Amino acid sequence: MNQYWSIRIQNIVPYTPGEQPRDRKFIKLNTNECPYPPSPKVIEAIRAAAGDSLRLYPDPECVELRSAIAKREGLDISQVFCGNGSDEILAFAFQAFFDLDKEVVFPKITYSFYPVYTDFFGLRRKEVPMNPDFSDPIELLCGENGGVVLANPNAPTGIAVGLSVVEKLLQANPDVVVIVDEAYVDFGAESAVKLISQYPNLLVVQTTSKSRALAGLRVGWAMGDAGLINGLRCVRDSINSYTVDRLAQAGAAAAIEDEKYFQFIRQRVMATRERTEKELKGKGFTVLPSQANFLFASHMRYKGKILLDGLRERGVLVRWWDKPEVEDWLRISIGTDEEMAVLIAALEELIRS
Amino acid sequence: MNQYWSIRIQNIVPYTPGEQPRDRKFIKLNTNECPYPPSPKVIEAIRAAAGDSLRLYPDPECVELRSAIAKREGLDISQVFCGNGSDEILAFAFQAFFDLDKEVVFPKITYSFYPVYTDFFGLRRKEVPMNPDFSDPIELLCGENGGVVLANPNAPTGIAVGLSVVEKLLQANPDVVVIVDEAYVDFGAESAVKLISQYPNLLVVQTTSKSRALAGLRVGWAMGDAGLINGLRCVRDSINSYTVDRLAQAGAAAAIEDEKYFQFIRQRVMATRERTEKELKGKGFTVLPSQANFLFASHMRYKGKILLDGLRERGVLVRWWDKPEVEDWLRISIGTDEEMAVLIAALEELIRS
Repeated sequence: MNQYWSIRIQNIVPYTPGEQPRDRKFIKLNTNECPYPPSPKVIEAIRAAAGDSLRLYPDPECVELRSAIAKREGLDISQVFCGNGSDEILAFAFQAFFDLDKEVVFPKITYSFYPVYTDFFGLRRKEVPMNPDFSDPIELLCGENGGVVLANPNAPTGIAVGLSVVEKLLQANPDVVVIVDEAYVDFGAESAVKLISQYPNLLVVQTTSKSRALAGLRVGWAMGDAGLINGLRCVRDSINSYTVDRLAQAGAAAAIEDEKYFQFIRQRVMATRERTEKELKGKGFTVLPSQANFLFASHMRYKGKILLDGLRERGVLVRWWDKPEVEDWLRISIGTDEEMAVLIAALEELIRS
Repeated sequence: MNQYWSIRIQNIVPYTPGEQPRDRKFIKLNTNECPYPPSPKVIEAIRAAAGDSLRLYPDPECVELRSAIAKREGLDISQVFCGNGSDEILAFAFQAFFDLDKEVVFPKITYSFYPVYTDFFGLRRKEVPMNPDFSDPIELLCGENGGVVLANPNAPTGIAVGLSVVEKLLQANPDVVVIVDEAYVDFGAESAVKLISQYPNLLVVQTTSKSRALAGLRVGWAMGDAGLINGLRCVRDSINSYTVDRLAQAGAAAAIEDEKYFQFIRQRVMATRERTEKELKGKGFTVLPSQANFLFASHMRYKGKILLDGLRERGVLVRWWDKPEVEDWLRISIGTDEEMAVLIAALEELIRS
């Protein structure tokens, strides 16, 4: 705190990103990054864009990148908006579509940035309790509210819902915007993109950070009715007209266009996830059914914090939250097979000791 | 408008960036970009950073880039904050330091994003009239207010104030934050950075977009007391923890470190500005004394809009605002000597016809 801080930030508890260690080589299974490098075509596109034209502002409308996304998804370019990562897009959407009069609803256990957004933008929220099996409490997200946010698959649980469930949510909330955060959708869940033409209240948010192996590039996008896209544009142009730099636009467009590499990455991550899930279960872990690039797991005899610290001592970072509902759970990103073997060996050692 | 838009955006008039033409080759003197390419060391650094590590999130704290800035400016790293262009930093600062109870003050003719920020963030503002010679109305920025924003040099006038004037502003407003927006400071004005140690209410904002020829990279930074820097961090971590991507961090750090190239750019731009100013005056233009990489000029016989359109027809873009106070003025970015020769020839033709 400082005497010059506004009321807005005096009582805010900001989001805490997963640790990005600078000092030592860890096996990083804590921020759901992709263990594989980006497509060689992405690197090529970035290197080609790294030239004299950097002296000029980027295209504020990201036309080439949006065209690539629209083409892949069968949308019109007017239905696509690009930003500096899906976090920025979510922050824009909370400002563009939610008001103070009614509560924004989302599940109690979900991406921990959502409550930060409602606090920071002066909104009210209702966090509805999960079903006993940690699946999304869909009934409680229907009805009188000021907007709905659903991560699908959910984080940190990894559990996905089917399109019929998303559709139910859209039909039950026709007067408010339903944001479906699909950061992890490419690892086995079904995208709601195909519902956009029927539901003008649907905003689907995706990112290059996970399945395109480009967390370091900061590109996310929203897809929805052009009316919603224009709302996001209005927020952006009230803050910072150029949020996606030239290199990021070029690299992300190349990533979207390299479907073959994308399929290679997602298949490998899913295969490693299936193997890791089996191994963890064999060691006494309960593992939620994941359609994401991470597993949410809890051991019958060991506290989450003990395992977190023990893994860290053995050079493996995973994510843990100091919240009663999930304090016995770890979120473990899917790395390479070799990294997961180190994880399993470290857990074995911990459990034996 | 759309039924789903929040009250917040229903009545907002967003900022309009200068045109970025996609279809045809214009001489772009409309967005104050640098006419020279970035340093070759920047391109090298970006190409080196374009590799496998893009799969990992960037350092949210931009430690290497901030270190480079701190070193150059004789500051501690805790006094530096980096963001996605100086617009994003300004937007963060308005949220971090300004409240609704008192009016934020700034000159009536200045960067047109400031009133958008006050509108969008629900603040009140007082725009104080310029002195008759278009210089900043410093007296009117002193005293009872909720915060001060001063572009130095000012845009679009190009007029700079000396450090003693900035200091007067800081002393007259000790209880509120004074933002000094130094986007154009490197073309002849004096930076307020050296006042930071004495004034905990001073926030200096700079950018790589102009004097480092990197508008396409989107990197800006703020310098000030660590208490203010932490306020900016608090806003960022409530919106988007990773706003500066890996390539932008690497490229900007290389730009800051290449002092020789930086000096080369600013000297060339200043020399071209002096020549162009003389030529414009010789053709009947009034030209304000500029310390920036643009000139603000008005012709004794021709309306601003007529000249704007005539130049556009001749392939030259400049900036004009449809506001009574400045409707007879054009803001002309400083290009290469060749580009300025085309501008002058086009103006000659217009004035003759």
